[in-house]
Amino acid sequence: MEEFRVALFDNGEGPASQEPIPPNPSDGELRSCVEQNQLRLMDRRDIDMVLFSPKASAMAHHVSDPKAAEAWAKACNDLVARVCDLYPSRFAGVCQLPQTPGGGLEGCIAELRRCVEQLGFVGTNLNPDPSGGHWTSPPLTDPYWFDLYEVLEELDVPAMVHVSDSLNPAFHALGAHYINADTTVFMQLLQGDLFSRFPRLRIVIPHGGGAVPYQWGRYQGLSVRLGRQPIEDRLLGNVFFDTCVYTKAAMALLFEVVGASNLLFGSEMLGALRGVNPETGEDWDHTLCYVDSLSLDPTERDAVYGENVRKVYPRLGRRLEALGK
Amino acid sequence: MEEFRVALFDNGEGPASQEPIPPNPSDGELRSCVEQNQLRLMDRRDIDMVLFSPKASAMAHHVSDPKAAEAWAKACNDLVARVCDLYPSRFAGVCQLPQTPGGGLEGCIAELRRCVEQLGFVGTNLNPDPSGGHWTSPPLTDPYWFDLYEVLEELDVPAMVHVSDSLNPAFHALGAHYINADTTVFMQLLQGDLFSRFPRLRIVIPHGGGAVPYQWGRYQGLSVRLGRQPIEDRLLGNVFFDTCVYTKAAMALLFEVVGASNLLFGSEMLGALRGVNPETGEDWDHTLCYVDSLSLDPTERDAVYGENVRKVYPRLGRRLEALGK
Repeated sequence: MEEFRVALFDNGEGPASQEPIPPNPSDGELRSCVEQNQLRLMDRRDIDMVLFSPKASAMAHHVSDPKAAEAWAKACNDLVARVCDLYPSRFAGVCQLPQTPGGGLEGCIAELRRCVEQLGFVGTNLNPDPSGGHWTSPPLTDPYWFDLYEVLEELDVPAMVHVSDSLNPAFHALGAHYINADTTVFMQLLQGDLFSRFPRLRIVIPHGGGAVPYQWGRYQGLSVRLGRQPIEDRLLGNVFFDTCVYTKAAMALLFEVVGASNLLFGSEMLGALRGVNPETGEDWDHTLCYVDSLSLDPTERDAVYGENVRKVYPRLGRRLEALGK
Repeated sequence: MEEFRVALFDNGEGPASQEPIPPNPSDGELRSCVEQNQLRLMDRRDIDMVLFSPKASAMAHHVSDPKAAEAWAKACNDLVARVCDLYPSRFAGVCQLPQTPGGGLEGCIAELRRCVEQLGFVGTNLNPDPSGGHWTSPPLTDPYWFDLYEVLEELDVPAMVHVSDSLNPAFHALGAHYINADTTVFMQLLQGDLFSRFPRLRIVIPHGGGAVPYQWGRYQGLSVRLGRQPIEDRLLGNVFFDTCVYTKAAMALLFEVVGASNLLFGSEMLGALRGVNPETGEDWDHTLCYVDSLSLDPTERDAVYGENVRKVYPRLGRRLEALGK
């Protein structure tokens, strides 16, 4: 896939002249790959099911060629769909959209419809900064994005906001750009008024919300200063956070400040951190340990480990129900 | 000052044609202003002394006219110096540098020298993104900045990294740009190797470190992934955080994760948040409450409330000693 991407984008610097062909691994190759990686860790960590999406850092939204973007998103989503079809009780698809910096959203809407209606995907990623660290797109509250939100509401699928690689040397992708994007989008939502226009739109913010839960008092105070209603009333019906933070202290803060009803269990698998935390002897991204170490009551546990995600991703909920889960 | 700034920068869009003159308030006007604002709150909150700098959001570094930038920085720093001279036991100066996007640093170095050597300032602000949200400058670890660091080491003054207003509609200044900058710079320092070249350089990161303490596990894991020594060994001799976070949970996390020896008591006065938190009945930015609510031992309290800042800002330490404090 990496070779295909390079060919497609001519090493990331523009569209290629010939039309490259995506790889077509056999079912056996796919099984072997996933079983040695995601499924191995899922089994070890008691994770029944994963929302499976293309690799976020490789979405390549910074290349302004809609045809290449569409070919790349399609190839990635198709591969995700094949894995989901091989293991329908372990993986549910979340798609990558063929975004480009400042480009129209028609191609994104078409790919979203294809993934949800034909491939059975249950959600999408949405990149608030397709430029890759230059932040040239309008805020997510701008009418630029509204056509997409209409379709998200119609299909009843949420969007996880997630940027891709950083082309800006100021921003390390995993250590700054990702976290900044989470923080930035939350503040866009606080500042704007998106959910009175799109009351059924649901946004998931990854990496435990970036800086947001830690800076919660700042957002509460800014909310007052901007003359807005409290965050809890205005945003928490539509905005959800995952639990991808990597200390017990951070997980405790996340639950204390945001509360279990807006948290979806998440574990970057495989994501930014690889290997074992020498202090704990556990994998860095084995976030279940941190959640389990909190004294959650059974309702909170059920919410974070399963009930919330069924509500935020209702198409997943229906699939789980059909599977008798 | 606001009128002067507008005249100087022609409403922020370019240099003005005529040369505007900075206001020259009387000592009485300055006293009256500060006594009704900063000093009133300092007395109410048992704060002996404040590191006083020009308003960060008004630094106007995005205007590419070095002459205007120098005039503006000089006027702001001179006014700060007058307040410090009126109340030498309550205020110590921290300067604004006349940065411009991509401009040379000679003017900044000259103004830094003037402020420290002639006006008695004890530190400086340093803007990692003079463009105002477009992030066009190289990382703080780039040789672009080295001449300035040499002078910071020579003068033995620390730099607080702080951006100014955001001109990018994606970033709310107080709710995203400030916090993103804190996070971004920490990751630049983690990724680079600045302190082996400048071992006596000290960097202060405001707003409780942006996302950093909350995302500490991510930084520990990325440090391993990048083949770096642990953060504690590599960075915490040179990097310090203030305590400007606005929930007890965040303050507890900050002390637990970073530890008292790298924290400088800070209270944005007057900063992003104004007025009273209806839940606590205290001012939003009365951060002393949050620190006092933790069970710190006397050594930790002394460190955060006074000892650390004497070490990080040794010119302040010497002044306090001369004042018998």
